[in-house]
Amino acid sequence: MGILGCGNVGSELVKLLTRDAELIFSQTGERFVITAVAVKSLDRQRPSWVETSFLSADADAVVSSPDVDVVVELMGGISPARELIEKALVNGKSVVTANKALLAVAGAELAQLARSVGRDIFFEAAVAGGIPLIRSLRVSLAGERVRRVAGIVNGTTNFILSAMSESGLSYEQALALATEAGYAEADPSADVEGDDARAKAAILATVAFGRLVRFEDVYREGITRITPSDIDFAKRHGYAIKLLALCEVSDAPDFGSDRIAVRVHPALVPADHPLALVRDSFNAVFVTGEAVGELMFYGRGAGGLPTASAVLGDVIDAAHNLRYGVTERQLDREVAAIVPMNELSSRFYIAVDVIDQPGVLAAVAKVFGENLVSIRSMEQIGMDNEARLVFITHTAPESSVKMTLDGIRELASVRRVAGFIRVFDPS
Amino acid sequence: MGILGCGNVGSELVKLLTRDAELIFSQTGERFVITAVAVKSLDRQRPSWVETSFLSADADAVVSSPDVDVVVELMGGISPARELIEKALVNGKSVVTANKALLAVAGAELAQLARSVGRDIFFEAAVAGGIPLIRSLRVSLAGERVRRVAGIVNGTTNFILSAMSESGLSYEQALALATEAGYAEADPSADVEGDDARAKAAILATVAFGRLVRFEDVYREGITRITPSDIDFAKRHGYAIKLLALCEVSDAPDFGSDRIAVRVHPALVPADHPLALVRDSFNAVFVTGEAVGELMFYGRGAGGLPTASAVLGDVIDAAHNLRYGVTERQLDREVAAIVPMNELSSRFYIAVDVIDQPGVLAAVAKVFGENLVSIRSMEQIGMDNEARLVFITHTAPESSVKMTLDGIRELASVRRVAGFIRVFDPS
Repeated sequence: MGILGCGNVGSELVKLLTRDAELIFSQTGERFVITAVAVKSLDRQRPSWVETSFLSADADAVVSSPDVDVVVELMGGISPARELIEKALVNGKSVVTANKALLAVAGAELAQLARSVGRDIFFEAAVAGGIPLIRSLRVSLAGERVRRVAGIVNGTTNFILSAMSESGLSYEQALALATEAGYAEADPSADVEGDDARAKAAILATVAFGRLVRFEDVYREGITRITPSDIDFAKRHGYAIKLLALCEVSDAPDFGSDRIAVRVHPALVPADHPLALVRDSFNAVFVTGEAVGELMFYGRGAGGLPTASAVLGDVIDAAHNLRYGVTERQLDREVAAIVPMNELSSRFYIAVDVIDQPGVLAAVAKVFGENLVSIRSMEQIGMDNEARLVFITHTAPESSVKMTLDGIRELASVRRVAGFIRVFDPS
Repeated sequence: MGILGCGNVGSELVKLLTRDAELIFSQTGERFVITAVAVKSLDRQRPSWVETSFLSADADAVVSSPDVDVVVELMGGISPARELIEKALVNGKSVVTANKALLAVAGAELAQLARSVGRDIFFEAAVAGGIPLIRSLRVSLAGERVRRVAGIVNGTTNFILSAMSESGLSYEQALALATEAGYAEADPSADVEGDDARAKAAILATVAFGRLVRFEDVYREGITRITPSDIDFAKRHGYAIKLLALCEVSDAPDFGSDRIAVRVHPALVPADHPLALVRDSFNAVFVTGEAVGELMFYGRGAGGLPTASAVLGDVIDAAHNLRYGVTERQLDREVAAIVPMNELSSRFYIAVDVIDQPGVLAAVAKVFGENLVSIRSMEQIGMDNEARLVFITHTAPESSVKMTLDGIRELASVRRVAGFIRVFDPS
C-alpha cells in the first residue's frame, strides 16, 4: 500500500501498521506492506518509527506503482489530492481518504470513477474522526428510513463552547485556550466559521439520505458571535449552546416530498439531550430513523491516533474487497432537492439591546406581532442605561423571523440585535 | 428469503421488507422476496400486513427450500433454533439471527459451520438491538486494540434502575412499573438476574477481542438486591447505579498476558460519565481502544422495530455477499483465557447495618485493616437503634473484600451486610 502525506494522521497510521502488524494479521488475515509514503519534503524530521526508506517525494509514482494496491490519501486540500486519487483509481488502486473538503465538492465524481473502474473509495475518517459512523450509515442502516442526522462534528468549536460554558470564558479567551491546547489552528476560521462542519454535513447528508448534497448546498453560521451572555441565558433556561450540523429529510407537505435541509449553525440544545452533554473536543452524531429510532455515536472526532484508527478500518475493508474482487455497494445518487433556509421553521432565541425607556418593549413586541412571530417567553435584563430584551419564540418560519429582525433594527430605541440563535427541537 | 418466527420482531421485519421494498431497492440495489415465514401456530392472529400465504408451520421446509437464500432466525431459544440454523447453513443459506442465548453457547460452532460451507452468519440484533455495534467492532475496528467494552445492554434493568433513581421507587415498585410498561416479561428473571446481559457480554467479548468467550465464562450478579438506600447514597456521592456488562483485556503483569475478564454486575458509575446518563430503557456501549480512544454507541436495545432494523441491515449485507460470492471475514478464534473473578480488583461500596453502640465502628474497621482493604470514605447513618456504616474502599482485590465481608458478618454487633456494589473505574 501507499500513503500520501505523513503528518499527524499519516505517521500514526504508519505506527499502527508496523507496530500492530501481527495483531492485524491475527484479527483480519491481512498483512499490509507499506511500499511508499509520499511527502512534500524529504528533509523534514519524522517520528522514529517512520522508516526513511518508505519516503518518496514523488506522489505520482506512488499512485502508479504496481506494488501498491491501496492508496491512502492524507494530504488534505483539493489539488493535487483530487488528481492523485483519480490517477490511483484509474490505475486500479482502491482509495482511502480522510479529505472532507475534497469529498464535499467532488465526492460524487470520485465515487462514480471508483465504480466505473471496480474499486472502492472509503472515507470513514472524513467525518467524526475515529467514530464508526459512515460505515454504520452505509451498511448497517442501508435499509433504514433515516429522517435526521444531528451532529457535533467539529471538536474545536465544541471545546470553545464547552470552555465558555464551564469556565465562563469569553469567545476570545476560549479560542486562545483552544489554540494553546492544540485544538485550534493558527488560522481557526475553517473551524469557527463552520466550514469544516459544513463539508462534513454535506458528506453525512449524502450518505444518510442517498442523495447528492454538496458543500455549497449547506447553509452555515459559525460560533464567533456567541457571547457569554447568550450562554448564561441558555444555561438558566435549561439549554446548552452547541454548533450543530443538521441534516433532515421530510415527507411533510410543507417540506416538499423528499427534499433535504442541511445546515450548520449554533443551536440551543435542551440540557438533558445527549448532544448537550458532549463536552470538550468530543464529537457526537445523533441519528433518527423510522425503524431504529434514536441512535447516537460518540467519540474522538479528530487527533492523529483516532483518525488513523478509522483509516486503518477502511484499509482492512478495502484489502478484503480487493482480495475477493468485490466492491462496496455504490449506487448512483440523484442530486438532492435542497430546502432553502428561508422555508425552514424553528424556535429562536433573540436578544435585543434597547434604550431603557418606557414603551420600548411594546414597540419591539409589536414588530414580532406584525410578522406573526409568536413569543413563547421573554426576559428583560437591566444593563446601565440600556436594557436587554431576550425572547424565545414559538416555532416560526426563518423568513418571518428575518423580517422581524429587520423591523426591530429600524426602531430608534433599539441599539442592536445582540443575539440570534436557533433552538434545536429534538422531537 | 425465509423467516423463522413471526412475533414482535418478525412481524416488524415483514412490514419493513414489504412496505419499504422500493426504498430498500433504491438504496441497496437489492429486492427481497419473502418466500415463507415459519410459525408455531397457523391459527394465531397476525398483523394485517403479514400475508397469510407466507405462513408455514414447517420450519424444516423453509430452511431447505431452494427458493430461500437467506434465513432469518427469530424464534429464540436453543432448540430447535440451533438445528434449523445448522440445516440452513448446510443447505447453502446465509443466516441472520438475533438469538443471543444460542450464540452465547454455540456461536463458535455455528460460525465454524458457516465458514466451512462458505456462508455468512450475522447477528447485529443479538446485542444492543438497533445499535450498529457488532459490525462496527467486526469491520470498522478490526485493526483496533480494544481494551475494554463496558455496556448497558439490558433495557429492562436500566428502566428499573432509572425509575428507582428518578422517582424514588423500591425495586419491587420499579419492576411492577416495568412490567406494566411492557419492558419486563411475566417472568423477569433472565433480565433482573443478569443472564440476558451475560449472554450479550459473552458475544461482545468474543467479537471485540477475537477470542472465544462463552456464557459460562461470564461472572454475573443481577439487580434484585439494589435498595433505594444504595441509590440514595450513590447519588449523594456523585454516582449512578447501572447494571454493566464489562469485558476487559489487559497485558498488565497482574492480569496475565491477553487474559480476558468478563462480568455482569451492578456498578457505581461516576455521574458525569456518559454511561451514567443513559436513562429509561436505552442501551449504550462504551468501547475503549488504544488508537481510537473512547467511543460510545447509544440507542434502543430492544423493541420490535429497532431490532428489525438491525436484522434488515444484516439481511442486506448477507444478500450483497451472496450476490458476489463472498463472506464476511471469519477467523478461527482461540478459546479465551478467563481471569477468575477473585483475581480482579476494583473499588467497592459496602453498607453494613450494626447495633448502634460504642466500639462497633472500630471493630468493623479492624476487619477491613486485617484484610488489607483500605477505606477511602466512610459515612454513618443513624437508623432507630441500628446504624448503617457505608464504606467506599480504595482499589482492592475481590478475594480480600470477600474475606472482609466474611469477617464482618461474624461480628456480634453486625446485623447484616446491607449493600455490596463494585465501583466502575472509567480510566
